[in-house]
Amino acid sequence: MKILIVGLGLIGGSYAMALSTKGHLVYGVDINEDSINYARDNMWINSGSTNPKDYIEKVDLIIICLYPQLIINFLKEYGYLFKENQIITDVCGVKSSFVEDAVKLAKPATYLSHHPMAGKEKMGIRFADSNIFIGANFLITPTEGISDKYILVLKNMAEEMGFGRISVMEPNRHDKMIGFTSQLTHAIAVSLVNSDHDIDTKKYIGDSYRDLTRIAMINERLWSELFLENKDALLSHIESFENELDILKNALYSNDKEKLNDLFRNSTKIRKEMEK
Amino acid sequence: MKILIVGLGLIGGSYAMALSTKGHLVYGVDINEDSINYARDNMWINSGSTNPKDYIEKVDLIIICLYPQLIINFLKEYGYLFKENQIITDVCGVKSSFVEDAVKLAKPATYLSHHPMAGKEKMGIRFADSNIFIGANFLITPTEGISDKYILVLKNMAEEMGFGRISVMEPNRHDKMIGFTSQLTHAIAVSLVNSDHDIDTKKYIGDSYRDLTRIAMINERLWSELFLENKDALLSHIESFENELDILKNALYSNDKEKLNDLFRNSTKIRKEMEK
Repeated sequence: MKILIVGLGLIGGSYAMALSTKGHLVYGVDINEDSINYARDNMWINSGSTNPKDYIEKVDLIIICLYPQLIINFLKEYGYLFKENQIITDVCGVKSSFVEDAVKLAKPATYLSHHPMAGKEKMGIRFADSNIFIGANFLITPTEGISDKYILVLKNMAEEMGFGRISVMEPNRHDKMIGFTSQLTHAIAVSLVNSDHDIDTKKYIGDSYRDLTRIAMINERLWSELFLENKDALLSHIESFENELDILKNALYSNDKEKLNDLFRNSTKIRKEMEK
Repeated sequence: MKILIVGLGLIGGSYAMALSTKGHLVYGVDINEDSINYARDNMWINSGSTNPKDYIEKVDLIIICLYPQLIINFLKEYGYLFKENQIITDVCGVKSSFVEDAVKLAKPATYLSHHPMAGKEKMGIRFADSNIFIGANFLITPTEGISDKYILVLKNMAEEMGFGRISVMEPNRHDKMIGFTSQLTHAIAVSLVNSDHDIDTKKYIGDSYRDLTRIAMINERLWSELFLENKDALLSHIESFENELDILKNALYSNDKEKLNDLFRNSTKIRKEMEK
């Protein structure tokens, strides 16, 4: 395929790396010349430009790797160049707030959003690494009436890139679940670290604290957008998490060892199930 | 040194492995013959027995690797055999609830407690691995009046075993901090997993959820003891964590992007500092 990657950051760069290695003809656009040069020097893109117009009409697939709010801007500015049979997709971590608009703006091309569940606590193409995709979850979120043949194109691409479980679901369902597995976990890590008011904490940490707080190193511009775009789902997940924490707190208050054991057995069972 | 390890589980087994490799003469006791045989077959112990009396009087150092509530039982039963210049220690994750009693029961030997901040989400000697100690934090918690020469013995042992930062602090201070870095993180992971009511969650997880919930696979008998023995510290940490989460929740409710950015910048700064 001829593929245009819009935005050569950590994720866009990793896509370019993975897809060029698989023999696709990859082009890249970015506002930053450095990122383009870096991708070209590594032979992850065939060529690149700061101007999307140089490539949009030449490609089969456009992968938008921009922050949520910039996706719609991009479509408004360049959507008029899209052609039938082109697929436009993005890698954004929330979907329902913009996909309906994106579908309209991308016509006559087909807008089909997806979400690669992989990343790093780093920014920029210099940290790009296609290995982050190996075995990771890949979510495709078609709106109503999208033909299966387009879904198949993304599925095949994901398989080529080494993703593990590939699933298809509605954008709303996606956002509800991602509010739990991704945004809630970040909210927890951030709050845990921010509740640390001791200068000596470093001496007392083990792997559990390290693992739980790694994602508290967070790209604030990206994540504040993701949080706000998926606000309702996230708030409801925070509430049910707090309810569970209260159950544990009450068991502690009342020295209820049996209840604590129950909670621990339950979490062990659910979490083990996930490893399968 | 001649060392007796009491309790050949995951941690006791890993101590035996590490210390025998460094040339110490290590003996092991356990209620389970299988664990003794496993340790002996691997040459982690010179010999072992189900009866502590076979070794107590022969050794310089006794490392008790038992559940918190069993430590005092052990001292009550065998303390009368201890001699001056012997050091008795334990690896327990909470300290203040029992160390004063332990000091008395261990006399004329010296009771000096410590805490290796390493582990696995597994139980039993078959998962023992001395590599878990490499670079980990090691905490020594002397009660008042303990001579420096005994502290030095544990420090040297920790260095030999490959531990990273070795720190000395009062038992109360230890428990307050561990309530935050260890017990609070486990309370969070357990509550997060228990608030998962969807059968499809597996499809939606990335590394963040995986890392945050690994410790939700938890040895319930051990951890319900640790939680209850350190109840007050843990409850107060849960409260301040919930306060931070409420600040984030309020920023979300009021669409306060700047506040979210602040929270994320703050957590990033604190967490990066920890990597140093």
